Amino acid sequence: MKTTTASICTIGDEILIGQIVDTNSAMISRALGAAGISVTRMTSIADNRESIITELSNELKYNDIVISTGGLGPTKDDITKDALAELSGSSAYVRNAAQEAIIHQILGARGLDVLDINLQQAMVPDSCEVILNRRGTAPIMVFRFPEGKFGHPAALYAMPGVPFETETALGEVIEDIKAHFKHNDIYHRTIMTYGVAESALSKQIAKWEDSLPSDMHLAYLPNPLTGVRLRLSVYNADEDAKERADARIEALKPLLGQNMYSDRDDCLEAVIGRLLKGSGKTLSIAESCTGGEIAHLITSVSGASEYFLGSVTSYAPEVKQKVLGVGADIISSKGIVSSAVAEAMAKGVRALLGSTYSLATTGWADATGDEHEPAGTVWVGVSGPSGTHSKRFHYTNARKINIERFAASALDFLRREIEKDGNQAY
Amino acid sequence: MKTTTASICTIGDEILIGQIVDTNSAMISRALGAAGISVTRMTSIADNRESIITELSNELKYNDIVISTGGLGPTKDDITKDALAELSGSSAYVRNAAQEAIIHQILGARGLDVLDINLQQAMVPDSCEVILNRRGTAPIMVFRFPEGKFGHPAALYAMPGVPFETETALGEVIEDIKAHFKHNDIYHRTIMTYGVAESALSKQIAKWEDSLPSDMHLAYLPNPLTGVRLRLSVYNADEDAKERADARIEALKPLLGQNMYSDRDDCLEAVIGRLLKGSGKTLSIAESCTGGEIAHLITSVSGASEYFLGSVTSYAPEVKQKVLGVGADIISSKGIVSSAVAEAMAKGVRALLGSTYSLATTGWADATGDEHEPAGTVWVGVSGPSGTHSKRFHYTNARKINIERFAASALDFLRREIEKDGNQAY
Repeated sequence: MKTTTASICTIGDEILIGQIVDTNSAMISRALGAAGISVTRMTSIADNRESIITELSNELKYNDIVISTGGLGPTKDDITKDALAELSGSSAYVRNAAQEAIIHQILGARGLDVLDINLQQAMVPDSCEVILNRRGTAPIMVFRFPEGKFGHPAALYAMPGVPFETETALGEVIEDIKAHFKHNDIYHRTIMTYGVAESALSKQIAKWEDSLPSDMHLAYLPNPLTGVRLRLSVYNADEDAKERADARIEALKPLLGQNMYSDRDDCLEAVIGRLLKGSGKTLSIAESCTGGEIAHLITSVSGASEYFLGSVTSYAPEVKQKVLGVGADIISSKGIVSSAVAEAMAKGVRALLGSTYSLATTGWADATGDEHEPAGTVWVGVSGPSGTHSKRFHYTNARKINIERFAASALDFLRREIEKDGNQAY
Repeated sequence: MKTTTASICTIGDEILIGQIVDTNSAMISRALGAAGISVTRMTSIADNRESIITELSNELKYNDIVISTGGLGPTKDDITKDALAELSGSSAYVRNAAQEAIIHQILGARGLDVLDINLQQAMVPDSCEVILNRRGTAPIMVFRFPEGKFGHPAALYAMPGVPFETETALGEVIEDIKAHFKHNDIYHRTIMTYGVAESALSKQIAKWEDSLPSDMHLAYLPNPLTGVRLRLSVYNADEDAKERADARIEALKPLLGQNMYSDRDDCLEAVIGRLLKGSGKTLSIAESCTGGEIAHLITSVSGASEYFLGSVTSYAPEVKQKVLGVGADIISSKGIVSSAVAEAMAKGVRALLGSTYSLATTGWADATGDEHEPAGTVWVGVSGPSGTHSKRFHYTNARKINIERFAASALDFLRREIEKDGNQAY
């Protein structure tokens, strides 16, 4: 069976000039992949009538499915709908009553007047079918092309560009695709590691990798914040292939030890959540240089209120003393960025909030450092039932990236300490 | 003068299957735009030899410059270098001693062994020039093609895919481009607004927009977290055109009032920084549902330690009482998500940390809500020299997006309150 292929096309000057980062393509691709549709290309093009017609026609020649996002707003710079009318040979617009009702409802709930340019968003070329946009005003337009047009049956889904509108409508788009196109399975298994470089990891698992059968493909996806993600893929996967891939993953785990933190596509904060949830154990945090990023990551996991009590961001040194009870003598003798201060902060916030575990950071994200530690250094403290421990990390990036790497390293250190107490997340 | 055009191509299965979001393209495009190079297309393709050769050749036909990122790692799935050797007609690899020295230095500093696969990264096709990668192991390869190859002189810059490595090398790449290609100016002016919908904004400034001359283009870039960004662009801009655009921007400002928060490409947390910095005024934060996100945003601005003292994330109700001094009676009578609790939290953290201003949030990000307020509601409190005020916001998104929108609304409310006291950021 020939694999059904898709191309994703984002439309908008704001993407091409780099003013916004396109997150829709990745989201759509994950959904297509889960449905067994292979994405061959992603393209971003300008709000330009000829570009839109040329590019989309070209993608429709080489792919069964094209999904576009963007260019459907109410204002004058959004011209995608007119371009699609021309591409599909439509000369008449029709009103979609259901979308018009949603437009009234959305703007009404926000206390906004319904303007003519809003209502025009419910007008669509008569050559398309509509999937409703339940979170926004521009409907999803589905254009179906017979074999004669592009050499094979093809479909174009024009979706809005606002990410949460795209996300809401995506399920219905995928169902429509499944109903109209053959699809087969691509099976992915993911292993998350932290604390080991891509090259060293590759050497460590070379024998295992070399023994993989020809229908399996391993990819290394290094990311400073999540570590190296290993992805094993089997194309055209039947049940047997899935079982064989699962068995290879089980054989890989013992080679990785505590550097592996999950056997699914995962993040450290979710793993920490699974380590604590349901155990009655709780967590508090004291942040300095990370400025709230760790608490934000922890609370981005749904259900975090079951184990996360709270945090103190002690940005000013006086807050470390007054709220967390870190001794002024420790700060002056050991330095504000030190093992002693990280451990005192961890103990202080654990006592203040009464948690089972606590995590603390103190570091220099971009200042010049001091006589004790250079810029790019963070000390991480963890306090828990097995005592209080600390670890130093050093990075050489710009401020924002250092903050993110400090937070990731701190979460991984906490994860390892909780695991050492006999807890397991997977 | 014909405009020099560029195409950006990201290479990697991990992008095509949506496992990572491509942030490099936007970063590169912004740098090219600032140098007056127009980006015509962005494309993402698979780690597949034929795809790489076909796509890059095609882009080189239609553009003067192609910048690729990714596919240069040390492991077996990264095959871009071989594909580029073939594309450029090279059959021999040469060692780049300077990059090899950097490889030893980087791995040495991390305490890692230098493996053969690491050293192979310093081997490049003899058809290219090298720009050093100072933050990573894979050098930037520059392939120059004479007019005969693609119908016009062209250059291909193959950059690594790790964003901070790309970012570090980008300056030298842009300098090389400027030295080899004609470039002219695209002049952009940006106005940031918050709290007004795209359609209403469009109506409000319709007369101003209709009067724009034909060489100016206005784009509306709505984003739930930063508000609607207005971008006025002049292509082939000389000094006169820039002045005319600046004058149009000045005429726009009075139409926007306090909904405008900046006259440059900006974010709310940076504007708040400029409002406080140098004034001796300080800020503290008490977060509940936003879980540290606001403190993280505030401290992501360099120099935040000048005005930001710290924050308390009071996730558990007891922390609101014990640390912030919110009365148990207020919580039980008014509800934990209420004007009264938001204001008490703001007063509590302002007293605890001794700041000029304080900002507090209490809300339901995704729980079912309670008898007082439904899910998606946040109450924001601001305490300062002119008293304590609060405001309610309501959104209907999933947890993570609600948290981000709560944080953005809270920052905007704080910004308006600080401005009301007579402070100005721009």
